[in-house]
Amino acid sequence: MRAAVFARRPARRSAIRGMKKISESAVRRLSLYLRFLQEAEAAGADTISSGELARRGGTTSAQVRKDLSLFGSFGKRGMGYSVPELLLEIRQILGLTRPWNVAVIGAGRLGSALSSFRDFEGRGFHISAVFDNDPAKIGQSWGGLTVQPDEALDATLRERRVEIAIVAVPAEAAQGVVDRVVAAGVKAVLNFAPVRLRVPRGVTLRSVDPTLELEGLSFALSNGKDG
Amino acid sequence: MRAAVFARRPARRSAIRGMKKISESAVRRLSLYLRFLQEAEAAGADTISSGELARRGGTTSAQVRKDLSLFGSFGKRGMGYSVPELLLEIRQILGLTRPWNVAVIGAGRLGSALSSFRDFEGRGFHISAVFDNDPAKIGQSWGGLTVQPDEALDATLRERRVEIAIVAVPAEAAQGVVDRVVAAGVKAVLNFAPVRLRVPRGVTLRSVDPTLELEGLSFALSNGKDG
Repeated sequence: MRAAVFARRPARRSAIRGMKKISESAVRRLSLYLRFLQEAEAAGADTISSGELARRGGTTSAQVRKDLSLFGSFGKRGMGYSVPELLLEIRQILGLTRPWNVAVIGAGRLGSALSSFRDFEGRGFHISAVFDNDPAKIGQSWGGLTVQPDEALDATLRERRVEIAIVAVPAEAAQGVVDRVVAAGVKAVLNFAPVRLRVPRGVTLRSVDPTLELEGLSFALSNGKDG
Repeated sequence: MRAAVFARRPARRSAIRGMKKISESAVRRLSLYLRFLQEAEAAGADTISSGELARRGGTTSAQVRKDLSLFGSFGKRGMGYSVPELLLEIRQILGLTRPWNVAVIGAGRLGSALSSFRDFEGRGFHISAVFDNDPAKIGQSWGGLTVQPDEALDATLRERRVEIAIVAVPAEAAQGVVDRVVAAGVKAVLNFAPVRLRVPRGVTLRSVDPTLELEGLSFALSNGKDG
C-alpha cells in the first residue's frame, strides 16, 4: 500500500492546484480525521475503516471516501486505510509536516490564554512573539516569551519570519492591526476580535467569534432543536 | 410594513417548528445580518437592501432573501427591509429578546478571558457563575463573580437556572464536566476543550477549536489558497 500511496502523491498535488475550491468544511473534516488517526495510532491500530472515521467525525463513510479521494488516497476495499500512511498524507495535505511561526497580537486575557495554549505547540504552531501596546504588559515574560511593544511589530514579524498572526485585540483596534501584519508580509490571520475584517487577495482570514456560537445555542434553545 | 410583518409572525413560528433542519450556516448568517443591522441602526439608516446585507455577509442577495424568507420576512421590492423591524425579527428568531444565564466552567486563562468578554453581556449572555477545582482559584473575585468550587457545580447550576455552560477545562476533564452540567439540566454547551464530546439527544453542543482554525490556515498557506 505504501508504494501506491507514494506513487499517487504527485497526482494529488497537481489535483489540489487544479481544483477550484476545496470547501472549508472539507478541510475541517480532514483535521478531525487527523485527530482520530492520532488516537488510533496511540491505541496501536494499524488500519482504520472509512466507517470508523465517519462515526468519529459525525459524517458518512461515503463522505469520508469522497474527502480522501479528493487527494488521491483510496485505501483498499475491505482492508481500510493504513493508519501511519493516512496520518502522513493528511499531515502533508494540511501542511503540518513542518512547524509554523505564529505571533499573538494583544496580550490581554485572551491573548495570554492563546499564547499558552498547549495544543498549539503540540500540533506544530509555534508562538514566537507576543505584542501589546500597554506599557504595563510590555516586557512581561510569558513562559519564555517577552511581551513586545506595538512599535516592534513590523520589524519583528519580518525578522522572525512570522507566517500566521493571531489577532486578540479589542474590536476597534483589529482592522489597524491586520493591515499592519499584512503589510509585514503575513499571509494568514486568525481573528478573535468580534468584528468583520478586510484582508487583500492572497491573505487568508479566519475568525473565531464565541458570541456567534452562543447565538447558535440561543437559537437552538429557543426553537427546540437538537445540536 | 409593520402590520404585514406582525401578521406573519405566527406563520413563521410554526414554520420553524415544522421545519426539519435549519442549517448551522444559515443561523450563522442570521447572526452576521444582525450585526450589520445594528451598525446600520447606529448609523441612522431606516432601511437596508438585501444587496447591502449580502455584501457585508460575504454572500449573495439571493441567499439573503432565501435566509430571511425561511422565517416569513420579505421586505418590499425596491424598498429594502426596515432596519428596526428586521432587527427585532432576527433577535426573536435567534432567541435574543431575553437574556440567557451562562456559567463558565474552568477558571484558567481561557475561562478568565471568556468570563470578562465584553461582547457576551452586550448581547444578552449573562455570566452568572464561574467554577474551578483549583483551591488557589476558588474564592477569587472576578468583576463581581466569585470563583466557586467544583463541588458547588450541580446545586448552583440549578439554583441560578443556568441555561448555557461554557466548558473551558483541560481536554481530559471535559467529558466529565459536560456529563455533570447535562445532569443538572443544562441544554446547551459551548466547548473550548480540544476534544470531541458526547451529549445526549435534546442537548446542543458547539465547539470552538482554535487549533483546527490554525490547521485551516496552514492548509491555505501550503496550497496557495485565498481565504
